[in-house]
Amino acid sequence: MKKHNFSAGPSILPQEVFEKSAQAVLNFNNLGLSILEISHRSKDFVSVMEEARATALELLGLESKGYQALFLSGGASMEFVRVPYNLLKENGKAAYLDTGTWAAGAIKEAKRFGNTEIIGSSKEANYTYIPKDYTVPADADYFHCTSNNTIFGTQMHSFPETGVPMVCDMSSDIFSRELDFSKFGLIYAGAQKNMGPAGTTLVVVKEDILGKTGRAIPGIMDYGQHIAKESMYNTPPVFPVYTSLLTLQWIKNNGGVAAMEEKNNSKAELLYNEIDRNPLFTGTANTEDRSKMNVTFLLKDEKHTEQFDKLWKAADISGLNGHRSVGGYRASIYNAMPIESVKVLVDVMQELERNA
Amino acid sequence: MKKHNFSAGPSILPQEVFEKSAQAVLNFNNLGLSILEISHRSKDFVSVMEEARATALELLGLESKGYQALFLSGGASMEFVRVPYNLLKENGKAAYLDTGTWAAGAIKEAKRFGNTEIIGSSKEANYTYIPKDYTVPADADYFHCTSNNTIFGTQMHSFPETGVPMVCDMSSDIFSRELDFSKFGLIYAGAQKNMGPAGTTLVVVKEDILGKTGRAIPGIMDYGQHIAKESMYNTPPVFPVYTSLLTLQWIKNNGGVAAMEEKNNSKAELLYNEIDRNPLFTGTANTEDRSKMNVTFLLKDEKHTEQFDKLWKAADISGLNGHRSVGGYRASIYNAMPIESVKVLVDVMQELERNA
Repeated sequence: MKKHNFSAGPSILPQEVFEKSAQAVLNFNNLGLSILEISHRSKDFVSVMEEARATALELLGLESKGYQALFLSGGASMEFVRVPYNLLKENGKAAYLDTGTWAAGAIKEAKRFGNTEIIGSSKEANYTYIPKDYTVPADADYFHCTSNNTIFGTQMHSFPETGVPMVCDMSSDIFSRELDFSKFGLIYAGAQKNMGPAGTTLVVVKEDILGKTGRAIPGIMDYGQHIAKESMYNTPPVFPVYTSLLTLQWIKNNGGVAAMEEKNNSKAELLYNEIDRNPLFTGTANTEDRSKMNVTFLLKDEKHTEQFDKLWKAADISGLNGHRSVGGYRASIYNAMPIESVKVLVDVMQELERNA
Repeated sequence: MKKHNFSAGPSILPQEVFEKSAQAVLNFNNLGLSILEISHRSKDFVSVMEEARATALELLGLESKGYQALFLSGGASMEFVRVPYNLLKENGKAAYLDTGTWAAGAIKEAKRFGNTEIIGSSKEANYTYIPKDYTVPADADYFHCTSNNTIFGTQMHSFPETGVPMVCDMSSDIFSRELDFSKFGLIYAGAQKNMGPAGTTLVVVKEDILGKTGRAIPGIMDYGQHIAKESMYNTPPVFPVYTSLLTLQWIKNNGGVAAMEEKNNSKAELLYNEIDRNPLFTGTANTEDRSKMNVTFLLKDEKHTEQFDKLWKAADISGLNGHRSVGGYRASIYNAMPIESVKVLVDVMQELERNA
């Protein structure tokens, strides 16, 4: 019996991806070997890596535009460090937008490397909105933002025009909507939301923004070295990369990012409409900044908590608790979440309303 | 039909590990969810991490001795950077033993951080032996060595007494033999040989050697932070950690490290005896430094190459080619390799002798 999985990450992936990746653990490409036991230099895995890199660029509309896609290890938190190593000049300046816990984490690491200016922040309002009244300094080495704030349920629905490279942590909404991705100099995303299992991070970088800091960069922290080694600087996280490829293929075979966006819009509309209509619930994020990936909400009266928790658990819903740092509820409705599961949640919310 | 897999890494794991991990991709702990889609903060995964950390320490005989085990991301190449970040003082000195490609890689990264002294090297002999005539300076912040050199087929069969913390890259022989592991201040090992699939690195560190450099360390590079967060500083590589736990449990259920060593000794003896006996072959490593994990050898006459390659491929052997940087052959006979597979290889070598 499959649950309705609203987990924020690691999170739901398409069922066919689970089936194909489980099969590859037993016998990959009919080689008589598990994907876990073959050399990453074998032609079977080299073609996995090549196809994953190419499909990522294709889905973002970035082929032949000077971009490279890499599948690295370490999680987005490692990119918090790699980004200033590769882009922040010794005596330069970085501009960061502070929209949540992870944005603040990125800022903390950049500060170790040099002058890091926070040009906008919603921290004072517990990150319930996206700051819009800010200017990216023309003399910054780069501008860094976080497109979707998983914990607080906010999302950037527009991006500034900048004269400097725009770097974006898209961990929780990559491949979920169409954007002009060529506006970005560097995009990174931990796999474990819309792309794959935990254990790999997609980095998409415009090559011409690299190599300008004059810093001595450790090999494994250097995007240029990863590009030169075709994302095989060292042994890559083979299984997470393969499972990410399966998910990218599933996106492509199901209409690409445009089709994902359409489904995501319908799911978000359904759920936010219920939150706004149902007198027992309230959303926590500023309406115009609401995330279409992570829907955060509260019971207006905590006395209904026990009853609501029983109802959704009885409906085979899992992963609905809010992040431990904020409480309440969070329904993560990533690409692979079917609208039927969102309907089950809405039904439960209406059942609570009838019986509370 | 299962192959005889002599791949150097990623490499053979026990068949039951493949079966259990494939099952977990479909339905983990009977939760109705894949292990790839559950939160790393869920109690089911937290207990995986706890058990993996505890079992690693138990197998090494390091429980209650001031050590912590961590499962990190990034591969051993990331530890090449984390080690000097955490142990090399700003104006301090590190002592390294240069026994092969990976040792040299570790040295290259340490040099970016400070004074790095190479106290012994076999580079001039293409790393065919382990230097023994060296002294670890008493004023070094630490001594770094590589216990097994996967590419060149050499292995350290003894370790120096040092007055300073001994750091060892055991990527390719961890859990393969008994040692007094309490002689080491820090041990690290990429999983993809004796422990699991690519995508996680075991770090075992004596806590009291940390926090002495005065360096500002990025959070994700800081062993102290990973310890404080119980190896969950950020989302860990869930599937590689789980599969590593399955392998550690398999080692434990099959007699522990002592039993692994006994089997590994038998396999290595069988294969080296054939290399020494068979007039067509020759080993490449200095006899007394031969690795019991990676057996490197050559055909004395290259004219037999085509015939030998045909024979072993026909016998369903895979992964026998030497590393692209050295050529020849390399039979990696890790813990999970049954002696029957080594016998198949020996039979093929004898068949070549009869028919060459």
